[in-house]
Amino acid sequence: MPDVPIQIIRTASDIRHGILAARHSGKRIGLVPTMGALHEGHLSLVRAAQKVCEFVAVTIFVNPAQFGPNEDFDKYPRTIDEDLEALHELGVDVVFMPERDELYPKGFSTYVLPPAVADPLEGQYRPEHFRGVATIVLKLFNLLPADVAFFGQKDFQQCQVIRHMAEDLNVPTEIQVCPIIREPDGLAMSSRNRYLSPEDRVRAVALSQALDEAVRQVQGGTIESSAVAERMRDILLKAGVNKIDYAVVVDADTLGAIDQIDRPAVALIAVRLGSTRLIDNALLNAE
Amino acid sequence: MPDVPIQIIRTASDIRHGILAARHSGKRIGLVPTMGALHEGHLSLVRAAQKVCEFVAVTIFVNPAQFGPNEDFDKYPRTIDEDLEALHELGVDVVFMPERDELYPKGFSTYVLPPAVADPLEGQYRPEHFRGVATIVLKLFNLLPADVAFFGQKDFQQCQVIRHMAEDLNVPTEIQVCPIIREPDGLAMSSRNRYLSPEDRVRAVALSQALDEAVRQVQGGTIESSAVAERMRDILLKAGVNKIDYAVVVDADTLGAIDQIDRPAVALIAVRLGSTRLIDNALLNAE
Repeated sequence: MPDVPIQIIRTASDIRHGILAARHSGKRIGLVPTMGALHEGHLSLVRAAQKVCEFVAVTIFVNPAQFGPNEDFDKYPRTIDEDLEALHELGVDVVFMPERDELYPKGFSTYVLPPAVADPLEGQYRPEHFRGVATIVLKLFNLLPADVAFFGQKDFQQCQVIRHMAEDLNVPTEIQVCPIIREPDGLAMSSRNRYLSPEDRVRAVALSQALDEAVRQVQGGTIESSAVAERMRDILLKAGVNKIDYAVVVDADTLGAIDQIDRPAVALIAVRLGSTRLIDNALLNAE
Repeated sequence: MPDVPIQIIRTASDIRHGILAARHSGKRIGLVPTMGALHEGHLSLVRAAQKVCEFVAVTIFVNPAQFGPNEDFDKYPRTIDEDLEALHELGVDVVFMPERDELYPKGFSTYVLPPAVADPLEGQYRPEHFRGVATIVLKLFNLLPADVAFFGQKDFQQCQVIRHMAEDLNVPTEIQVCPIIREPDGLAMSSRNRYLSPEDRVRAVALSQALDEAVRQVQGGTIESSAVAERMRDILLKAGVNKIDYAVVVDADTLGAIDQIDRPAVALIAVRLGSTRLIDNALLNAE
Protein backbone atom coordinates (compact mmCIF):
# COMPACT_ATOMS: atom_id res chain seq x y z
CA MET A 1 0.00 0.00 0.00
CA PRO A 2 1.40 3.44 -0.92
CA ASP A 3 2.66 5.53 2.00
CA VAL A 4 1.05 8.80 0.97
CA PRO A 5 -2.56 9.10 2.15
CA ILE A 6 -5.07 9.12 -0.68
CA GLN A 7 -6.02 12.62 -1.81
CA ILE A 8 -9.73 13.30 -1.36
CA ILE A 9 -11.28 16.35 -3.00
CA ARG A 10 -14.81 17.56 -2.32
CA THR A 11 -15.32 20.77 -4.26
CA ALA A 12 -15.78 21.42 -7.97
CA SER A 13 -13.15 24.14 -8.17
CA ASP A 14 -10.51 22.11 -6.28
CA ILE A 15 -10.90 19.04 -8.47
CA ARG A 16 -10.71 21.07 -11.65
CA HIS A 17 -7.56 22.81 -10.51
CA GLY A 18 -6.07 19.50 -9.41
CA ILE A 19 -6.70 17.90 -12.80
CA LEU A 20 -5.42 20.94 -14.71
CA ALA A 21 -2.24 20.97 -12.62
CA ALA A 22 -1.61 17.30 -13.46
CA ARG A 23 -2.32 18.03 -17.14
CA HIS A 24 0.08 20.94 -17.20
CA SER A 25 2.81 18.73 -15.80
CA GLY A 26 2.38 16.67 -18.97
CA LYS A 27 0.53 13.73 -17.45
CA ARG A 28 -2.11 11.80 -19.35
CA ILE A 29 -5.31 11.90 -17.28
CA GLY A 30 -7.62 8.93 -16.75
CA LEU A 31 -11.11 9.30 -15.27
CA VAL A 32 -13.11 6.49 -13.64
CA PRO A 33 -16.59 7.72 -12.65
CA THR A 34 -18.33 5.51 -10.05
CA MET A 35 -21.16 5.57 -7.54
CA GLY A 36 -18.95 3.83 -4.96
CA ALA A 37 -19.76 0.42 -3.46
CA LEU A 38 -16.71 -0.63 -5.44
CA HIS A 39 -16.16 -4.22 -6.58
CA GLU A 40 -13.64 -5.92 -8.85
CA GLY A 41 -15.41 -4.48 -11.89
CA HIS A 42 -14.66 -0.94 -10.79
CA LEU A 43 -11.12 -1.85 -9.78
CA SER A 44 -10.51 -3.33 -13.23
CA LEU A 45 -11.41 0.07 -14.69
CA VAL A 46 -8.84 1.72 -12.42
CA ARG A 47 -6.19 -0.77 -13.53
CA ALA A 48 -7.08 -0.20 -17.19
CA ALA A 49 -6.75 3.55 -16.59
CA GLN A 50 -3.39 3.14 -14.87
CA LYS A 51 -2.10 1.18 -17.87
CA VAL A 52 -2.50 4.13 -20.25
CA CYS A 53 -2.56 7.19 -17.97
CA GLU A 54 -0.02 8.66 -15.55
CA PHE A 55 -2.68 10.30 -13.40
CA VAL A 56 -5.92 8.52 -12.49
CA ALA A 57 -8.91 10.21 -10.86
CA VAL A 58 -11.82 8.23 -9.46
CA THR A 59 -15.12 9.91 -8.67
CA ILE A 60 -17.53 8.56 -6.07
CA PHE A 61 -20.98 10.13 -6.23
CA VAL A 62 -24.37 8.49 -5.92
CA ASN A 63 -26.11 10.58 -8.55
CA PRO A 64 -29.70 11.33 -7.52
CA ALA A 65 -30.66 12.44 -11.05
CA GLN A 66 -30.34 8.91 -12.44
CA PHE A 67 -32.67 7.25 -9.93
CA GLY A 68 -36.42 7.14 -10.50
CA PRO A 69 -38.82 8.15 -7.70
CA ASN A 70 -39.45 4.49 -6.76
CA GLU A 71 -35.88 3.31 -7.19
CA ASP A 72 -33.16 2.55 -4.68
CA PHE A 73 -31.38 5.89 -4.27
CA ASP A 74 -31.75 5.92 -0.48
CA LYS A 75 -30.73 2.34 0.03
CA TYR A 76 -28.05 2.25 -2.68
CA PRO A 77 -25.02 0.71 -0.94
CA ARG A 78 -22.50 3.19 0.48
CA THR A 79 -19.23 1.58 1.59
CA ILE A 80 -16.95 4.58 1.58
CA ASP A 81 -14.24 3.32 3.96
CA GLU A 82 -13.72 0.10 2.03
CA ASP A 83 -13.85 2.03 -1.26
CA LEU A 84 -11.11 4.43 -0.20
CA GLU A 85 -8.97 1.61 1.14
CA ALA A 86 -9.20 -0.26 -2.16
CA LEU A 87 -8.39 2.87 -4.17
CA HIS A 88 -5.50 3.69 -1.87
CA GLU A 89 -4.13 0.21 -2.31
CA LEU A 90 -4.24 0.62 -6.09
CA GLY A 91 -2.40 3.94 -5.85
CA VAL A 92 -5.13 6.10 -7.35
CA ASP A 93 -3.98 9.73 -7.57
CA VAL A 94 -7.12 11.52 -6.48
CA VAL A 95 -10.69 10.75 -5.43
CA PHE A 96 -13.43 13.30 -6.10
CA MET A 97 -16.21 12.81 -3.59
CA PRO A 98 -18.56 15.82 -3.65
CA GLU A 99 -21.68 16.39 -1.58
CA ARG A 100 -24.97 16.43 -3.48
CA ASP A 101 -25.33 20.25 -3.28
CA GLU A 102 -21.89 20.73 -4.80
CA LEU A 103 -23.11 19.22 -8.07
CA TYR A 104 -26.83 20.01 -7.86
CA PRO A 105 -27.13 23.34 -6.08
CA LYS A 106 -30.47 25.06 -5.51
CA GLY A 107 -31.89 26.24 -8.85
CA PHE A 108 -30.09 23.57 -10.88
CA SER A 109 -32.23 22.98 -13.98
CA THR A 110 -30.10 22.13 -17.04
CA TYR A 111 -30.03 18.53 -18.24
CA VAL A 112 -28.64 16.59 -21.15
CA LEU A 113 -31.39 15.12 -23.29
CA PRO A 114 -29.66 11.84 -24.13
CA PRO A 115 -29.23 10.46 -27.65
CA ALA A 116 -31.74 8.16 -29.36
CA VAL A 117 -29.86 5.06 -28.19
CA ALA A 118 -31.21 5.86 -24.69
CA ASP A 119 -34.84 5.32 -25.74
CA PRO A 120 -35.34 1.53 -25.89
CA LEU A 121 -34.79 -1.14 -23.20
CA GLU A 122 -33.54 0.57 -20.00
CA GLY A 123 -35.08 3.79 -21.32
CA GLN A 124 -38.50 2.10 -21.29
CA TYR A 125 -38.14 0.72 -17.77
CA ARG A 126 -36.27 3.66 -16.24
CA PRO A 127 -37.64 6.74 -18.09
CA GLU A 128 -35.38 9.50 -16.69
CA HIS A 129 -32.41 7.28 -15.92
CA PHE A 130 -30.20 8.10 -18.91
CA ARG A 131 -31.04 11.79 -18.72
CA GLY A 132 -29.50 11.69 -15.24
CA VAL A 133 -26.54 9.61 -16.41
CA ALA A 134 -25.77 11.82 -19.41
CA THR A 135 -26.05 14.95 -17.27
CA ILE A 136 -23.72 13.82 -14.49
CA VAL A 137 -21.18 12.35 -16.93
CA LEU A 138 -21.06 15.58 -18.92
CA LYS A 139 -20.62 17.55 -15.68
CA LEU A 140 -17.77 15.25 -14.65
CA PHE A 141 -16.15 15.58 -18.09
CA ASN A 142 -16.14 19.36 -17.56
CA LEU A 143 -14.91 19.16 -13.96
CA LEU A 144 -12.25 16.52 -14.61
CA PRO A 145 -10.99 17.21 -18.14
CA ALA A 146 -9.48 13.79 -18.80
CA ASP A 147 -7.81 12.31 -21.83
CA VAL A 148 -9.65 9.01 -21.41
CA ALA A 149 -12.68 8.00 -19.33
CA PHE A 150 -13.31 4.36 -18.44
CA PHE A 151 -16.69 2.64 -18.26
CA GLY A 152 -17.70 -0.98 -17.78
CA GLN A 153 -19.40 -2.97 -20.54
CA LYS A 154 -21.70 -4.39 -17.85
CA ASP A 155 -23.84 -1.25 -18.40
CA PHE A 156 -23.80 -1.71 -22.15
CA GLN A 157 -26.57 0.70 -23.06
CA GLN A 158 -25.10 3.31 -20.73
CA CYS A 159 -21.79 3.00 -22.57
CA GLN A 160 -23.52 3.61 -25.88
CA VAL A 161 -25.45 6.56 -24.47
CA ILE A 162 -22.19 8.10 -23.25
CA ARG A 163 -20.37 7.36 -26.51
CA HIS A 164 -23.09 8.92 -28.66
CA MET A 165 -23.49 11.85 -26.28
CA ALA A 166 -19.77 12.53 -26.28
CA GLU A 167 -19.69 12.42 -30.08
CA ASP A 168 -22.79 14.59 -30.55
CA LEU A 169 -21.65 17.24 -28.06
CA ASN A 170 -17.99 17.20 -29.23
CA VAL A 171 -16.71 16.11 -25.83
CA PRO A 172 -12.91 15.85 -26.18
CA THR A 173 -12.50 12.97 -23.73
CA GLU A 174 -11.98 9.54 -25.29
CA ILE A 175 -14.39 6.84 -24.06
CA GLN A 176 -12.93 3.43 -23.29
CA VAL A 177 -15.22 0.51 -22.51
CA CYS A 178 -13.75 -2.33 -20.42
CA PRO A 179 -14.84 -5.98 -20.22
CA ILE A 180 -17.40 -7.28 -17.73
CA ILE A 181 -15.86 -8.79 -14.59
CA ARG A 182 -17.70 -11.88 -13.32
CA GLU A 183 -17.92 -13.97 -10.15
CA PRO A 184 -16.46 -17.49 -10.49
CA ASP A 185 -19.94 -18.85 -11.33
CA GLY A 186 -20.48 -16.28 -14.06
CA LEU A 187 -22.63 -13.63 -12.35
CA ALA A 188 -21.60 -10.19 -13.57
CA MET A 189 -20.26 -8.11 -10.68
CA SER A 190 -22.63 -5.37 -9.57
CA SER A 191 -23.02 -3.22 -6.49
CA ARG A 192 -26.61 -4.43 -6.38
CA ASN A 193 -25.68 -8.14 -6.12
CA ARG A 194 -25.43 -7.70 -2.35
CA TYR A 195 -29.21 -7.15 -2.25
CA LEU A 196 -29.86 -10.73 -3.44
CA SER A 197 -31.28 -13.36 -1.07
CA PRO A 198 -29.26 -16.62 -1.03
CA GLU A 199 -31.92 -18.29 -3.22
CA ASP A 200 -31.96 -15.44 -5.73
CA ARG A 201 -28.15 -15.38 -5.76
CA VAL A 202 -28.29 -18.98 -7.03
CA ARG A 203 -30.94 -18.14 -9.64
CA ALA A 204 -28.95 -15.10 -10.80
CA VAL A 205 -26.42 -17.36 -12.51
CA ALA A 206 -29.06 -17.92 -15.18
CA LEU A 207 -28.30 -14.51 -16.73
CA SER A 208 -24.74 -15.37 -17.70
CA GLN A 209 -25.80 -18.91 -18.62
CA ALA A 210 -28.41 -17.55 -21.01
CA LEU A 211 -25.84 -15.18 -22.53
CA ASP A 212 -23.24 -17.97 -22.89
CA GLU A 213 -25.84 -20.02 -24.72
CA ALA A 214 -26.61 -17.05 -27.01
CA VAL A 215 -22.92 -16.76 -27.90
CA ARG A 216 -22.75 -20.53 -28.54
CA GLN A 217 -25.84 -20.43 -30.76
CA VAL A 218 -24.47 -17.61 -32.90
CA GLN A 219 -21.07 -19.31 -33.13
CA GLY A 220 -22.96 -22.44 -34.17
CA GLY A 221 -24.61 -20.63 -37.07
CA THR A 222 -27.97 -19.43 -35.73
CA ILE A 223 -28.76 -16.09 -37.35
CA GLU A 224 -32.38 -15.38 -36.36
CA SER A 225 -32.29 -13.00 -33.42
CA SER A 226 -35.72 -14.21 -32.25
CA ALA A 227 -34.44 -17.79 -31.92
CA VAL A 228 -31.56 -16.63 -29.74
CA ALA A 229 -33.81 -14.41 -27.63
CA GLU A 230 -36.34 -17.21 -27.13
CA ARG A 231 -33.67 -19.59 -25.93
CA MET A 232 -32.43 -17.00 -23.43
CA ARG A 233 -35.94 -16.55 -22.03
CA ASP A 234 -36.30 -20.34 -21.68
CA ILE A 235 -33.12 -20.57 -19.65
CA LEU A 236 -34.13 -17.64 -17.42
CA LEU A 237 -37.64 -19.00 -16.83
CA LYS A 238 -36.38 -22.52 -16.11
CA ALA A 239 -34.00 -21.10 -13.51
CA GLY A 240 -36.98 -19.53 -11.75
CA VAL A 241 -36.56 -15.96 -12.95
CA ASN A 242 -40.20 -14.90 -13.23
CA LYS A 243 -39.83 -11.22 -14.05
CA ILE A 244 -37.94 -10.70 -17.28
CA ASP A 245 -37.94 -7.02 -18.28
CA TYR A 246 -36.26 -7.96 -21.54
CA ALA A 247 -34.01 -10.59 -23.10
CA VAL A 248 -33.20 -9.46 -26.64
CA VAL A 249 -30.68 -9.41 -29.43
CA VAL A 250 -30.22 -5.97 -31.02
CA ASP A 251 -27.86 -3.90 -33.17
CA ALA A 252 -24.78 -3.26 -31.03
CA ASP A 253 -24.42 0.38 -32.05
CA THR A 254 -27.99 1.70 -32.16
CA LEU A 255 -29.69 -0.97 -29.97
CA GLY A 256 -32.37 -1.09 -32.66
CA ALA A 257 -34.26 -4.32 -33.40
CA ILE A 258 -32.73 -6.70 -35.95
CA ASP A 259 -34.20 -9.82 -37.53
CA GLN A 260 -30.91 -11.37 -38.56
CA ILE A 261 -27.64 -11.30 -36.68
CA ASP A 262 -25.75 -10.09 -39.74
CA ARG A 263 -23.86 -7.20 -38.11
CA PRO A 264 -22.26 -6.48 -34.72
CA ALA A 265 -25.03 -7.41 -32.29
CA VAL A 266 -25.48 -7.65 -28.56
CA ALA A 267 -27.63 -9.85 -26.33
CA LEU A 268 -29.08 -7.82 -23.47
CA ILE A 269 -30.93 -9.08 -20.40
CA ALA A 270 -32.72 -7.29 -17.57
CA VAL A 271 -34.57 -9.27 -14.89
CA ARG A 272 -35.96 -8.80 -11.42
CA LEU A 273 -35.09 -11.21 -8.66
CA GLY A 274 -37.05 -10.34 -5.54
CA SER A 275 -36.82 -6.56 -5.34
CA THR A 276 -33.44 -6.50 -7.10
CA ARG A 277 -33.06 -5.61 -10.74
CA LEU A 278 -30.09 -7.17 -12.57
CA ILE A 279 -28.74 -6.52 -16.06
CA ASP A 280 -26.13 -8.32 -18.12
CA ASN A 281 -25.06 -8.59 -21.76
CA ALA A 282 -22.77 -10.28 -24.26
CA LEU A 283 -21.45 -9.14 -27.61
CA LEU A 284 -22.29 -11.51 -30.48
CA ASN A 285 -20.23 -11.88 -33.67
CA ALA A 286 -18.12 -9.03 -32.34
CA GLU A 287 -15.03 -9.76 -34.44
CA MET B 1 -5.58 45.73 -42.50
CA PRO B 2 -3.23 42.89 -41.41
CA ASP B 3 -1.07 41.38 -44.15
CA VAL B 4 -1.65 37.74 -43.24
CA PRO B 5 -4.82 36.32 -44.78
CA ILE B 6 -7.45 35.41 -42.18
CA GLN B 7 -7.30 31.77 -41.09
CA ILE B 8 -10.52 29.92 -41.88
CA ILE B 9 -11.13 26.50 -40.36
CA ARG B 10 -13.98 24.22 -41.34
CA THR B 11 -13.58 20.97 -39.41
CA ALA B 12 -14.17 20.15 -35.77
CA SER B 13 -10.80 18.46 -35.26
CA ASP B 14 -8.82 21.28 -36.92
CA ILE B 15 -10.42 24.01 -34.82
CA ARG B 16 -9.89 22.09 -31.60
CA HIS B 17 -6.25 21.51 -32.40
CA GLY B 18 -5.81 25.14 -33.41
CA ILE B 19 -7.27 26.39 -30.13
CA LEU B 20 -5.26 23.92 -28.05
CA ALA B 21 -2.06 24.96 -29.81
CA ALA B 22 -2.77 28.60 -28.98
CA ARG B 23 -3.56 27.64 -25.37
CA HIS B 24 -0.35 25.68 -25.04
CA SER B 25 1.62 28.69 -26.20
CA GLY B 26 0.23 30.43 -23.13
CA LYS B 27 -2.32 32.63 -24.87
CA ARG B 28 -5.62 33.55 -23.25
CA ILE B 29 -8.39 32.44 -25.63
CA GLY B 30 -11.51 34.47 -26.43
CA LEU B 31 -14.52 33.02 -28.24
CA VAL B 32 -17.16 35.03 -30.10
CA PRO B 33 -19.92 32.75 -31.42
CA THR B 34 -22.01 34.30 -34.21
CA MET B 35 -24.40 33.35 -36.99
CA GLY B 36 -22.63 35.73 -39.37
CA ALA B 37 -24.39 38.72 -40.99
CA LEU B 38 -22.08 40.69 -38.75
CA HIS B 39 -22.86 44.23 -37.63
CA GLU B 40 -21.28 46.64 -35.15
CA GLY B 41 -22.77 44.64 -32.27
CA HIS B 42 -20.78 41.57 -33.24
CA LEU B 43 -17.66 43.62 -33.90
CA SER B 44 -17.91 45.17 -30.44
CA LEU B 45 -17.78 41.64 -29.01
CA VAL B 46 -14.61 40.96 -30.98
CA ARG B 47 -13.04 44.17 -29.67
CA ALA B 48 -14.05 43.28 -26.11
CA ALA B 49 -12.44 39.86 -26.60
CA GLN B 50 -9.25 41.39 -28.00
CA LYS B 51 -9.00 43.61 -24.92
CA VAL B 52 -8.62 40.66 -22.53
CA CYS B 53 -7.43 37.78 -24.76
CA GLU B 54 -4.32 37.27 -26.89
CA PHE B 55 -6.08 34.88 -29.27
CA VAL B 56 -9.61 35.51 -30.52
CA ALA B 57 -11.70 32.95 -32.40
CA VAL B 58 -14.97 33.89 -34.11
CA THR B 59 -17.43 31.22 -35.20
CA ILE B 60 -19.87 31.74 -38.04
CA PHE B 61 -22.60 29.12 -38.19
CA VAL B 62 -26.30 29.56 -38.86
CA ASN B 63 -27.50 26.97 -36.37
CA PRO B 64 -30.52 25.09 -37.74
CA ALA B 65 -31.40 23.68 -34.30
CA GLN B 66 -32.41 27.08 -32.95
CA PHE B 67 -34.90 27.92 -35.72
CA GLY B 68 -38.51 26.75 -35.53
CA PRO B 69 -40.15 25.07 -38.54
CA ASN B 70 -41.86 28.35 -39.58
CA GLU B 71 -38.95 30.62 -38.84
CA ASP B 72 -36.39 32.28 -41.08
CA PHE B 73 -33.56 29.71 -41.24
CA ASP B 74 -33.53 29.63 -45.04
CA LYS B 75 -33.71 33.35 -45.54
CA TYR B 76 -31.50 34.28 -42.58
CA PRO B 77 -28.99 36.77 -44.03
CA ARG B 78 -25.65 35.28 -45.13
CA THR B 79 -23.00 37.91 -45.94
CA ILE B 80 -19.89 35.82 -45.66
CA ASP B 81 -17.51 37.92 -47.80
CA GLU B 82 -18.27 41.11 -45.88
CA ASP B 83 -18.09 39.18 -42.59
CA LEU B 84 -14.63 37.84 -43.32
CA GLU B 85 -13.41 41.23 -44.50
CA ALA B 86 -14.58 42.86 -41.27
CA LEU B 87 -12.98 40.16 -39.12
CA HIS B 88 -9.77 40.37 -41.12
CA GLU B 89 -9.68 44.09 -40.61
CA LEU B 90 -10.03 43.61 -36.86
CA GLY B 91 -7.16 41.09 -36.88
CA VAL B 92 -9.17 38.13 -35.61
CA ASP B 93 -6.90 35.09 -35.20
CA VAL B 94 -9.16 32.38 -36.57
CA VAL B 95 -12.66 31.94 -37.97
CA PHE B 96 -14.46 28.62 -37.52
CA MET B 97 -16.99 28.21 -40.31
CA PRO B 98 -18.21 24.60 -40.44
CA GLU B 99 -20.75 23.06 -42.78
CA ARG B 100 -24.01 21.90 -41.22
CA ASP B 101 -23.05 18.20 -41.38
CA GLU B 102 -19.82 18.84 -39.51
CA LEU B 103 -21.79 19.83 -36.41
CA TYR B 104 -25.00 17.86 -36.98
CA PRO B 105 -24.00 14.63 -38.72
CA LYS B 106 -26.52 11.91 -39.58
CA GLY B 107 -27.76 10.28 -36.38
CA PHE B 108 -27.17 13.36 -34.23
CA SER B 109 -29.66 13.17 -31.37
CA THR B 110 -28.24 14.63 -28.13
CA TYR B 111 -29.50 18.02 -26.97
CA VAL B 112 -29.12 20.27 -23.99
CA LEU B 113 -32.41 20.71 -22.15
CA PRO B 114 -31.96 24.35 -21.21
CA PRO B 115 -32.36 25.74 -17.68
CA ALA B 116 -35.64 27.07 -16.26
CA VAL B 117 -34.79 30.63 -17.31
CA ALA B 118 -35.45 29.48 -20.91
CA ASP B 119 -39.13 28.78 -20.22
CA PRO B 120 -40.88 32.19 -20.21
CA LEU B 121 -40.98 34.93 -22.87
CA GLU B 122 -38.93 33.78 -25.90
CA GLY B 123 -39.44 30.21 -24.69
CA GLN B 124 -43.20 30.67 -25.08
CA TYR B 125 -42.98 32.14 -28.57
CA ARG B 126 -40.08 30.01 -29.85
CA PRO B 127 -40.54 26.63 -28.10
CA GLU B 128 -37.36 24.81 -29.22
CA HIS B 129 -35.24 27.89 -29.73
CA PHE B 130 -33.20 27.79 -26.52
CA ARG B 131 -32.74 24.04 -26.73
CA GLY B 132 -30.97 24.69 -30.03
CA VAL B 133 -29.00 27.62 -28.62
CA ALA B 134 -27.85 25.75 -25.51
CA THR B 135 -26.86 22.73 -27.62
CA ILE B 136 -24.76 24.61 -30.17
CA VAL B 137 -23.11 26.79 -27.53
CA LEU B 138 -22.14 23.75 -25.48
CA LYS B 139 -20.74 22.10 -28.63
CA LEU B 140 -18.72 25.22 -29.41
CA PHE B 141 -17.44 25.38 -25.82
CA ASN B 142 -16.12 21.84 -26.28
CA LEU B 143 -14.68 22.48 -29.74
CA LEU B 144 -13.12 25.84 -28.88
CA PRO B 145 -12.06 25.55 -25.24
CA ALA B 146 -11.84 29.26 -24.50
CA ASP B 147 -11.06 31.16 -21.34
CA VAL B 148 -13.84 33.68 -22.01
CA ALA B 149 -16.81 33.67 -24.38
CA PHE B 150 -18.52 36.91 -25.37
CA PHE B 151 -22.25 37.42 -25.93
CA GLY B 152 -24.36 40.51 -26.58
CA GLN B 153 -26.88 41.78 -24.04
CA LYS B 154 -29.24 42.40 -26.95
CA ASP B 155 -30.26 38.73 -26.57
CA PHE B 156 -30.76 39.12 -22.84
CA GLN B 157 -32.66 35.91 -22.16
CA GLN B 158 -30.17 33.97 -24.29
CA CYS B 159 -27.34 35.33 -22.14
CA GLN B 160 -29.11 34.14 -19.00
CA VAL B 161 -29.79 30.73 -20.55
CA ILE B 162 -26.10 30.37 -21.41
CA ARG B 163 -24.96 31.62 -18.00
CA HIS B 164 -27.20 29.21 -16.11
CA MET B 165 -26.38 26.34 -18.46
CA ALA B 166 -22.65 26.94 -18.07
CA GLU B 167 -22.99 27.01 -14.30
CA ASP B 168 -25.22 23.92 -14.09
CA LEU B 169 -23.02 21.85 -16.41
CA ASN B 170 -19.73 23.06 -14.88
CA VAL B 171 -18.54 24.58 -18.16
CA PRO B 172 -15.10 26.06 -17.45
CA THR B 173 -15.43 28.96 -19.91
CA GLU B 174 -16.24 32.35 -18.36
CA ILE B 175 -19.27 34.10 -19.87
CA GLN B 176 -18.96 37.83 -20.54
CA VAL B 177 -22.00 39.85 -21.60
CA CYS B 178 -21.34 43.05 -23.58
CA PRO B 179 -23.54 46.13 -23.95
CA ILE B 180 -26.13 46.55 -26.70
CA ILE B 181 -24.88 48.53 -29.69
CA ARG B 182 -27.50 50.86 -31.20
CA GLU B 183 -28.09 52.80 -34.40
CA PRO B 184 -27.93 56.61 -34.00
CA ASP B 185 -31.73 56.73 -33.55
CA GLY B 186 -31.64 54.08 -30.82
CA LEU B 187 -32.62 50.89 -32.69
CA ALA B 188 -30.63 47.96 -31.31
CA MET B 189 -28.41 46.49 -34.01
CA SER B 190 -29.61 43.14 -35.31
CA SER B 191 -28.96 41.05 -38.38
CA ARG B 192 -32.73 41.01 -38.87
CA ASN B 193 -33.05 44.80 -39.10
CA ARG B 194 -32.28 44.54 -42.81
CA TYR B 195 -35.65 42.77 -43.27
CA LEU B 196 -37.56 45.91 -42.23
CA SER B 197 -39.51 47.95 -44.77
CA PRO B 198 -38.71 51.70 -44.68
CA GLU B 199 -41.99 52.36 -42.80
CA ASP B 200 -41.32 49.62 -40.24
CA ARG B 201 -37.74 50.82 -39.83
CA VAL B 202 -39.19 54.15 -38.63
CA ARG B 203 -41.67 52.44 -36.29
CA ALA B 204 -38.89 50.22 -34.90
CA VAL B 205 -37.43 53.17 -32.99
CA ALA B 206 -40.37 52.78 -30.59
CA LEU B 207 -38.67 49.79 -28.91
CA SER B 208 -35.71 51.77 -27.61
CA GLN B 209 -37.97 54.75 -26.87
CA ALA B 210 -40.21 52.55 -24.73
CA LEU B 211 -37.16 51.16 -22.91
CA ASP B 212 -35.68 54.62 -22.36
CA GLU B 213 -38.98 55.67 -20.83
CA ALA B 214 -38.94 52.58 -18.58
CA VAL B 215 -35.48 53.52 -17.31
CA ARG B 216 -36.64 57.11 -16.74
CA GLN B 217 -39.72 55.96 -14.82
CA VAL B 218 -37.71 53.73 -12.53
CA GLN B 219 -35.12 56.46 -11.97
CA GLY B 220 -38.05 58.76 -11.18
CA GLY B 221 -39.24 56.46 -8.45
CA THR B 222 -41.88 54.24 -10.07
CA ILE B 223 -41.70 50.81 -8.49
CA GLU B 224 -44.78 48.95 -9.81
CA SER B 225 -43.60 46.78 -12.68
CA SER B 226 -47.10 46.83 -14.20
CA ALA B 227 -47.05 50.62 -14.47
CA VAL B 228 -43.74 50.52 -16.32
CA ALA B 229 -44.91 47.71 -18.62
CA GLU B 230 -48.16 49.53 -19.41
CA ARG B 231 -46.31 52.69 -20.40
CA MET B 232 -44.03 50.67 -22.71
CA ARG B 233 -47.06 49.12 -24.43
CA ASP B 234 -48.61 52.57 -24.89
CA ILE B 235 -45.49 53.88 -26.59
CA LEU B 236 -45.25 50.82 -28.86
CA LEU B 237 -48.93 50.95 -29.84
CA LYS B 238 -48.84 54.70 -30.47
CA ALA B 239 -45.89 54.18 -32.82
CA GLY B 240 -47.99 51.74 -34.84
CA VAL B 241 -46.55 48.49 -33.52
CA ASN B 242 -49.64 46.30 -33.56
CA LYS B 243 -48.15 42.94 -32.64
CA ILE B 244 -46.52 43.01 -29.24
CA ASP B 245 -45.39 39.53 -28.19
CA TYR B 246 -44.45 40.91 -24.78
CA ALA B 247 -43.38 44.11 -23.06
CA VAL B 248 -42.60 43.27 -19.46
CA VAL B 249 -40.48 44.00 -16.42
CA VAL B 250 -39.07 40.87 -14.74
CA ASP B 251 -36.38 39.67 -12.33
CA ALA B 252 -33.06 40.13 -14.14
CA ASP B 253 -31.62 36.79 -13.04
CA THR B 254 -34.56 34.36 -13.23
CA LEU B 255 -36.80 36.35 -15.64
CA GLY B 256 -39.62 35.54 -13.22
CA ALA B 257 -42.55 37.95 -12.74
CA ILE B 258 -42.16 40.66 -10.09
CA ASP B 259 -44.75 43.09 -8.72
CA GLN B 260 -42.26 45.63 -7.41
CA ILE B 261 -38.98 46.68 -8.95
CA ASP B 262 -37.12 46.12 -5.69
CA ARG B 263 -34.23 44.05 -7.08
CA PRO B 264 -32.14 43.95 -10.29
CA ALA B 265 -34.80 43.94 -12.99
CA VAL B 266 -34.93 44.07 -16.75
CA ALA B 267 -37.45 45.47 -19.20
CA LEU B 268 -37.86 43.13 -22.16
CA ILE B 269 -39.71 43.75 -25.41
CA ALA B 270 -40.52 41.51 -28.38
CA VAL B 271 -42.64 42.80 -31.27
CA ARG B 272 -43.46 41.96 -34.83
CA LEU B 273 -43.16 44.55 -37.56
CA GLY B 274 -44.39 43.14 -40.84
CA SER B 275 -42.91 39.64 -40.93
CA THR B 276 -39.89 40.69 -38.85
CA ARG B 277 -39.61 39.92 -35.16
CA LEU B 278 -37.51 42.33 -33.10
CA ILE B 279 -36.37 42.11 -29.48
CA ASP B 280 -34.71 44.64 -27.20
CA ASN B 281 -34.17 45.19 -23.49
CA ALA B 282 -32.82 47.51 -20.82
CA LEU B 283 -31.56 46.83 -17.32
CA LEU B 284 -33.40 48.76 -14.61
CA ASN B 285 -31.91 49.76 -11.24
CA ALA B 286 -28.84 47.77 -12.26
CA GLU B 287 -26.42 49.47 -9.87
